[in-house]
Amino acid sequence: MSDQSTFVAPGSEAELEEGAALTPKFDADGLVTCVATDSNTGDVLMVAHMNDEALAKTIATGEAWYFSRSRRALWKKGESSGHTQRVIEMRVDCDQDSVWIKVEQEVAACHTGRRSCFYRSVPLGKPGAVTLEFRDAKVFDPKSAYKNK
Amino acid sequence: MSDQSTFVAPGSEAELEEGAALTPKFDADGLVTCVATDSNTGDVLMVAHMNDEALAKTIATGEAWYFSRSRRALWKKGESSGHTQRVIEMRVDCDQDSVWIKVEQEVAACHTGRRSCFYRSVPLGKPGAVTLEFRDAKVFDPKSAYKNK
Repeated sequence: MSDQSTFVAPGSEAELEEGAALTPKFDADGLVTCVATDSNTGDVLMVAHMNDEALAKTIATGEAWYFSRSRRALWKKGESSGHTQRVIEMRVDCDQDSVWIKVEQEVAACHTGRRSCFYRSVPLGKPGAVTLEFRDAKVFDPKSAYKNK
Repeated sequence: MSDQSTFVAPGSEAELEEGAALTPKFDADGLVTCVATDSNTGDVLMVAHMNDEALAKTIATGEAWYFSRSRRALWKKGESSGHTQRVIEMRVDCDQDSVWIKVEQEVAACHTGRRSCFYRSVPLGKPGAVTLEFRDAKVFDPKSAYKNK
């Protein structure tokens, strides 16, 4: 599937910001940033990337698709683990280089076993080295979830 | 201020994911992605980037600092407009290349005048060209807010 022409190329700054056309501003690697939040709690579940095809598939299907920078491959969220994301709403930001999806997350978003990838808090205002504070317990065993991967 | 040694360099995948040390995985441009959400509503306000110094200043001061990729400059959120962000909590993700800050946002986060940069919704599951739907009205006049910039 050729995905070079799925979206119209970005126009002027005014068109990007005030226009009604979705004209994603993909970066040099052909990606936009995607933030997925939990539609029930509002928590940020993960930050990942979408290429042209992942964005188009997510819009068409209402299921989250991403592009893995490390594997250089299109990737349906949950294709190995079953931990899919049903998209309740998608938003695009002012300069159209980021999208925000509110999702119904099956089980958990993080491959480490936590509901969210953001399971550690960074203490603020303390001098010296930062010691992270774990906030979220594992809700699944990653060894089991990915055994067939 | 030299900021090359503020943080310890990332270790193994296991250390990044399960360790208690903040060892941010800056990209080739020296940046991590930062998602700012409204601490009251949970809405995503903006997605931006932090370099070593911006991240260190945010942690030290509890006010959001970013690094502008277009201007190649450190930037305190609200330094021109007064629309600062007080950080209520910071989280870091599994591979430590993204941070999530929950903030108390003064007035609005978006330079276009909206509370959030994500003021347009992308309709899902419709064939053909995507027409964005505006969701958020402007809460300030950007011409006035940045007149002294």
